[in-house]
Order: sequence, then C-alpha cells, then structure tokens
Amino acid sequence: MNAINKMNARQLAISSRLCIGLDTELSKIPQYLLSDESPIVSFNQQIIEATSEFASAYKINTAFYEQYGVKGWEALTQTIESIPNDIITIADAKRADIGNTSSAYARAVFDDLHCDAITVNPYMGYDSLAPFLEREDRMVIVLALTSNPGSSDFQRLISQGKPIYQHVIETVLSWKRNASLGFVIGATHPGELALIRQYAHESVLLIPGIGAQGGDIDAIMKANANGPVFINVSRGIQYAGEGELFGEKAYEAAKYYKERIGYDT
Amino acid sequence: MNAINKMNARQLAISSRLCIGLDTELSKIPQYLLSDESPIVSFNQQIIEATSEFASAYKINTAFYEQYGVKGWEALTQTIESIPNDIITIADAKRADIGNTSSAYARAVFDDLHCDAITVNPYMGYDSLAPFLEREDRMVIVLALTSNPGSSDFQRLISQGKPIYQHVIETVLSWKRNASLGFVIGATHPGELALIRQYAHESVLLIPGIGAQGGDIDAIMKANANGPVFINVSRGIQYAGEGELFGEKAYEAAKYYKERIGYDT
Repeated sequence: MNAINKMNARQLAISSRLCIGLDTELSKIPQYLLSDESPIVSFNQQIIEATSEFASAYKINTAFYEQYGVKGWEALTQTIESIPNDIITIADAKRADIGNTSSAYARAVFDDLHCDAITVNPYMGYDSLAPFLEREDRMVIVLALTSNPGSSDFQRLISQGKPIYQHVIETVLSWKRNASLGFVIGATHPGELALIRQYAHESVLLIPGIGAQGGDIDAIMKANANGPVFINVSRGIQYAGEGELFGEKAYEAAKYYKERIGYDT
Repeated sequence: MNAINKMNARQLAISSRLCIGLDTELSKIPQYLLSDESPIVSFNQQIIEATSEFASAYKINTAFYEQYGVKGWEALTQTIESIPNDIITIADAKRADIGNTSSAYARAVFDDLHCDAITVNPYMGYDSLAPFLEREDRMVIVLALTSNPGSSDFQRLISQGKPIYQHVIETVLSWKRNASLGFVIGATHPGELALIRQYAHESVLLIPGIGAQGGDIDAIMKANANGPVFINVSRGIQYAGEGELFGEKAYEAAKYYKERIGYDT
C-alpha cells in the first residue's frame, strides 16, 4: 500500500487527522523514567500506547534524537519500531543535499528507519529531492511556508509577482514523481493556506504550529477547505502532564485535539 | 581558539586550503576491509592518516553515515574522533528547523560530535539559524549557491533585482552572531563567485564541486580573489585508488589538489 492510501485508510478508520509529534528530550520527561535503560524509548512507548487510537500519524523530529549521539539514534530506531503498522510515520528530518547524497538520506529514512514519509528542504532544487520523489510507496513532504517567524526572511520574498513559497509549491508540483506529495504549511498562516488550497487542492498538507506555537485550529480547518491534511501537535500532547500521570494527560490531550480538529469527509 | 583562528592557523601552518570530504560508502571501499569490525572507520582512519598533512579541514557528510543506522552513527562519531585536533572538522549536515529544534541540532553537532563547523540551510530564516550562530567558538556555513543543477530552481529566482542566493548572503551577513560565518558556493559557478566576493570579502567560503562535479580550480581561485576559503574534494581523493593501494593513491591525489589549489597570503 502506498503512503497516501495508508494515510486515507487510517484517517477514515479512526476519523482523525491528528499527527502527534515525538520530540522527546531527557530534560522534559518524568524523572522516575531516567533510571530506565532507555528513558526516551520508555517515555515514547507510553505516549504511543496512550495516544495511538487518536493518531493518524506520528512525526518524529530527528534533531531531538541526534543530540544524544549513538544512544539517541538507537532510541529513534526503537521509537519508530514501536509505532503500530497502520499509523503513518513521518521522519521530520528536513533533509536535502546533492543527488547522490540525498540518495543516502532516502536510504536512511525509508530503508533503515522504515518511515512512510519524510520532510525535505527545497532550497537545493530538483536533483536534491529526486531520490526521495522516485520512491512510489512513500510520501515526500516539502517545506513551503513554515510556522516560525523566520519564514518571512526568504520564503516570502516576491519573484515574478509570487512569493518564493508559491514558486516552491508550483514548481515541485510540476516535477516527475512516484511518491505521494505533501507540503509543510505552518498553522500560523491561515490566510495563505486558503490561497495555497486554490493551486494545491490535492496535495497533502502537514500543518505544525498548533498549541505551543499559537496556531488557531478553527481558522486552519476552514482555510484547508477539506483537503488532505495532517494537523500536528507535539508539545501540547507529549508534555500535557507531568510525573506518573503523563500518559493519562497525553491521552486526554490527544482526544481533545482529535475532536477539535474534526473529520469531515 | 575560535573556528576562524583555528582555520587560519592550520592553513598557514601547512600552506593549504584543501578540505577533504569523507563521504564513505561500503560499496566503494576495498573489499578486504569489509571483514573489519567497522569497515567505514578502518577506511576513514587510513584516509585521514594518508592525507592529513595536506588537509586544512575534513568535511564529513552525515547522510553517508545515517544510511547505516546506529552502526553508521557510531562510525561517524569515531571518524570525527580520529581527526587530529588542529584540523577543522565540518559536519556537512545541511540542517535547520524551528528554533528549539535547531538548538538540538546544534547540541548534536557541536557538543556531541564536537565538530568545529556545520553547514546549514537558510530556507527557514533567522530563528532557524540563531542557535548555531550564537556559538562563538564555532563556524556556521550557510548554503548560498550550491554546486548542483537544482541550484537554478529557487536560488537564482530574482527578487528586487537580486537572486535569492544574494538575498541569503546579504541578509545572513546582517544578522547578529557570535560564530564565524561562511557560505557554500559551488565550484561550478566561478562567474557568480567573483561577484559574491564584492559583497562578502571576509566570509569563509566552502567551495565543493571540484573533481567529480567538474568545477575548474583555476577559474575558482581567480574568482575567489584570495578570500578565506576551503576548497573541497571528496570522491577525487577518497576513491582515487582501489584495493590495497587506496591510501597511497589518496595521498597522491591530496598532494596534487593541495598544490593545484595553491596558497597565496
């Protein structure tokens, strides 16, 4: 099953468009887990167990694992292995490099970590994304208009009457591909999202920035116009509770966000 | 010692601006090494031993290590540990993400891997690079005009009369920073390099694309106008020879490139 079909099947089965971020840091998890062999894996497995009934996807940001070196990469691998097979796994890695190097990144994320999807950075152009785009069973999610303040620095520069992020979306849509295609659009830009849906009706959008970053769910769902979408919440679910109740609190937060996001077909 | 001083000291000591890439793949190293406990580390250590007298820096591209999972990250760590302390280590990682995530990448590369420098992608703007730029003892090398064909897709779009890569360079130069600053300019663009040197005289340039990618050394050195620079060669040195002679051939290739690049003060 290719990634877009897997996404649709999962979202339909649980009526949820929620994506849950696993951006785990030792300084933020309950103290009593720190004596476990791998505290990060223990924490993540309990978060996954508590929230999986609401999760259409888990998004794992590689940075939080890389900071712990070899042990972190082990925890990354074990975390992805702990995710039920019918849930989409997104490596939020924001990779891209010249062609032969991107091929190695594609092997890392798709063949070694066995993720369904990866986020990639468009700055280096076609050949830097081709090794990802040629994989027919996977999903490639390209940064377009990100949720952070720095998205104004270069993504919004105007060229030929259009912002750079629109060039990125339109150009990537024109490229040959076998993979399912998506774009990252921050939840902090509902106005732009409505415009983007006019020329990217069918693309999957991965929308981070709800919760800790302040994005407005209602405005986003209206602007999305019922296109295929993952609405991501990371800190708002992972760190909803402290101490031994963290799993229960994560369950409640995931349930809340799943319902707030809604699911219309 | 901060990174720019370390770079200057090393380049002066050995009269070399050569940076050697360690983009190691199991399929490209001599077969007889494959029975070693870590063939990649064995190969890299012999390349480093054979070439270090000509190396002002080693550039390690993380993709080639990540493709081998946990073992690959171990090999990455051990490779960096094998590089003599007076030689600059560049993690060619092309990272960047929202602020708190980039902080984790900075810890991964600077504190866990102990690299002097990192390559970063500017697409996400100021706050995505700030956690790298605040590190006063390190060097941050920002992608500007890359060596690959896809560099034309977005980097050369014109906004306000200037290509995006020029916006990137001028804007990044205007940002607050403690780190030493550099830019990646592909060796395949000598004409643009000469123009870039008019507004980025003092920035370190990391120039890949010599050798396998076809960049012309003489044209590049002329266009660089004697600014601070690393000229990178990866495959042309690492894979200069096959079988048991690979170390000797790498030595000869490194010596050749060091001399061809030259060193004028």
